[in-house]
Amino acid sequence: MNGAEPTNLKINADRLWDSLMEMGKIGATPKGGVCRIALTDVDREGRDLFVRWCQEAGCDVSVDQLGNIFARRPGRDNRKPPIMTGSHLDTQPTGGKFDGCYGVMAALEVVRALNDHDYETEAPVEISVWTNEEGFRFAPGMTASGAFSGKFSTDFALSLEDADGITLGQALRDIGYDGPEPVGRPVGAFFEAHIEQGPILEREGKTIGVVTSAQGQRWYELHWTGMESHAGTTPMEGRRDALQGAAELIVAARRIGMCPNGRATVGVIESRPQSRNTIPGSVFMTLDLRHPVETELTRMDRQIRTAAARIAAEHQLDVQIEQIWYFPPTAFDPKCVEAVRNAAVKTGMSHMDIVSGAGHDACYLARVAPTAIIFVPCKDGVSHNELEDASKEDVADGCQVLLQAVIERANAV
Amino acid sequence: MNGAEPTNLKINADRLWDSLMEMGKIGATPKGGVCRIALTDVDREGRDLFVRWCQEAGCDVSVDQLGNIFARRPGRDNRKPPIMTGSHLDTQPTGGKFDGCYGVMAALEVVRALNDHDYETEAPVEISVWTNEEGFRFAPGMTASGAFSGKFSTDFALSLEDADGITLGQALRDIGYDGPEPVGRPVGAFFEAHIEQGPILEREGKTIGVVTSAQGQRWYELHWTGMESHAGTTPMEGRRDALQGAAELIVAARRIGMCPNGRATVGVIESRPQSRNTIPGSVFMTLDLRHPVETELTRMDRQIRTAAARIAAEHQLDVQIEQIWYFPPTAFDPKCVEAVRNAAVKTGMSHMDIVSGAGHDACYLARVAPTAIIFVPCKDGVSHNELEDASKEDVADGCQVLLQAVIERANAV
Repeated sequence: MNGAEPTNLKINADRLWDSLMEMGKIGATPKGGVCRIALTDVDREGRDLFVRWCQEAGCDVSVDQLGNIFARRPGRDNRKPPIMTGSHLDTQPTGGKFDGCYGVMAALEVVRALNDHDYETEAPVEISVWTNEEGFRFAPGMTASGAFSGKFSTDFALSLEDADGITLGQALRDIGYDGPEPVGRPVGAFFEAHIEQGPILEREGKTIGVVTSAQGQRWYELHWTGMESHAGTTPMEGRRDALQGAAELIVAARRIGMCPNGRATVGVIESRPQSRNTIPGSVFMTLDLRHPVETELTRMDRQIRTAAARIAAEHQLDVQIEQIWYFPPTAFDPKCVEAVRNAAVKTGMSHMDIVSGAGHDACYLARVAPTAIIFVPCKDGVSHNELEDASKEDVADGCQVLLQAVIERANAV
Repeated sequence: MNGAEPTNLKINADRLWDSLMEMGKIGATPKGGVCRIALTDVDREGRDLFVRWCQEAGCDVSVDQLGNIFARRPGRDNRKPPIMTGSHLDTQPTGGKFDGCYGVMAALEVVRALNDHDYETEAPVEISVWTNEEGFRFAPGMTASGAFSGKFSTDFALSLEDADGITLGQALRDIGYDGPEPVGRPVGAFFEAHIEQGPILEREGKTIGVVTSAQGQRWYELHWTGMESHAGTTPMEGRRDALQGAAELIVAARRIGMCPNGRATVGVIESRPQSRNTIPGSVFMTLDLRHPVETELTRMDRQIRTAAARIAAEHQLDVQIEQIWYFPPTAFDPKCVEAVRNAAVKTGMSHMDIVSGAGHDACYLARVAPTAIIFVPCKDGVSHNELEDASKEDVADGCQVLLQAVIERANAV
């Protein structure tokens, strides 16, 4: 074993691409996307194929009570906690071939490449597949990585119901992935390779995103109440126009979000009574604020509340702001992040530090293990869409960096 | 006859109020409003009561092919075109006791008061009731006054269908108000008494609104198209947020409408895809611009288009603006307006010039006859609502002014 120097180990770009395309056939949509919703028959098909490939690669496969799959390649010292890498196989109903699946196939390719070169790591290497990341069928998403990290209890996760009232636990039994293992196991470090799902790497012309942190999120619901009145007979002065208040807050939210790495989005708006010649009397809207730095996210929260109060006073409106969800910012592990950066430097790939704007299983794993994420560009920044695309070169480069980072941490722990 | 000087003639405030309350029982709602939708059985009941009262007041009643009712009190010279006054008896589904009905009952009270005093006018006086002013059942509203003025053909009006596919013509036959008379007749002048349906008289502490003009209206539909993308991974710079564009136009529209007598209202907004963490890709909205001066309304139109184009360019959005309806400003007849103002002065009532923000049958009548409107205050400016209210004193005062104005024009033509 260890016939090659770690830096000379190469992943097989064709094999990685072929596996991605093969997995993409399971739940393939006519428009080139994938519909492989969590714990459906097609999800089982995808899981079965993945398990077969892992077994063919010599891994020991185990499944926990939440259907998380772990495929273990032994190391020199199997008492050491494994270096884990993976993602999820479930998709949005009109999802693409890369979101989640890339992280799983890249992990598999790491194991295959280690096998090709007969390379033995110090610590074992484990591939993981996390159940119900997308959260489309069972909300909230990132369910099983959340339970793995202690965010939720296993019972809570098992009791989640889909729109038909079927529990996650029942759905696991239906597809035969209700494993025996308790949820939670030692993890030496966790790496997740993922498409960026945004436009930054493509715009900057970089291949590798060294993900240093993930944004914290605050989700709000706002209710504006004014007074319905006649569009013709009510002078502009003295109007209590709930939609005017909402509009001014949308404009203010953009200004507040326009700081480095900040995000502010109003995704839902409902105005009443929806009559062309009636001044709107009430408006419901949502607001999604994100920032990777806790203090900055708190500042945005304060600014939004101040703006809403000022706008409400100006238009004689009542405004209720409720924060309905909070996900704290995640700072990834310096050593794991450094391992990713080192790998990019050593392999001569263009790279940049980047913040993850979306949630990933790695955000939960970071609570229980040193963790990092590797981004590769995706076409036009599009994801959660059948048009989602990434180049064979980029996914191969990201996998090569993953291999190097895994080896570095596996030999260091 | 002519036993009294015209300025000494007094209307009977109690009789007027009792008639209003009596008519308000027909279609009365539990919350104190009225639901007397055009050409329903309750509309027929209301019309029948009105016709009976007119006959008891000695009027000749005739009905035209659109169900418009005319009740004629002869003058000294019956070859002269009549001075006409009236309004409508139909209501919104959750309407009040005063909108429309006040104008009809005030007209009836004018005739009754002339009778009380045995006063003979030079020209005849006619009360008119216009079919389907509200437009709730058959759109567009002000249907029969529109046809009377030549805006629509009678056939067009008769062919309008309600939500159940029943034509206006059929509905007229169903309640027995498909009269024999062709639509259109000579009118010496037309006066309409109406509640303001807005807050200005109440705010200014005035009893009589001398309505000098009615606002022109431009109705628009706007379609904003941007690009749906992820709320977390898409930086603020470069977003193509259709809702941001719509919000900025709502703010701009308010600014553009904030000129004397201007109005700008966004009543309907629909955003897609209505997902909390997705940047909206498309927004539909309506816009209602009003101004009593044609050139100002044109200026507002130009400003809105300029603002929309600027906002669209700034956010890389596509915007389509379609004007779907136009109602030109109406300047009422100087002599009729003067007759209203004179009456208020002579009777010592507080009064002010005012612009009608809503459409009224008088706006169409102004196309074929010298016309004016008299406003009285309504509580909190509320109309099209079961809470609509007006004081007995104010409606009596408005009716007194109507009587004086009718006499002045009847003796002048």
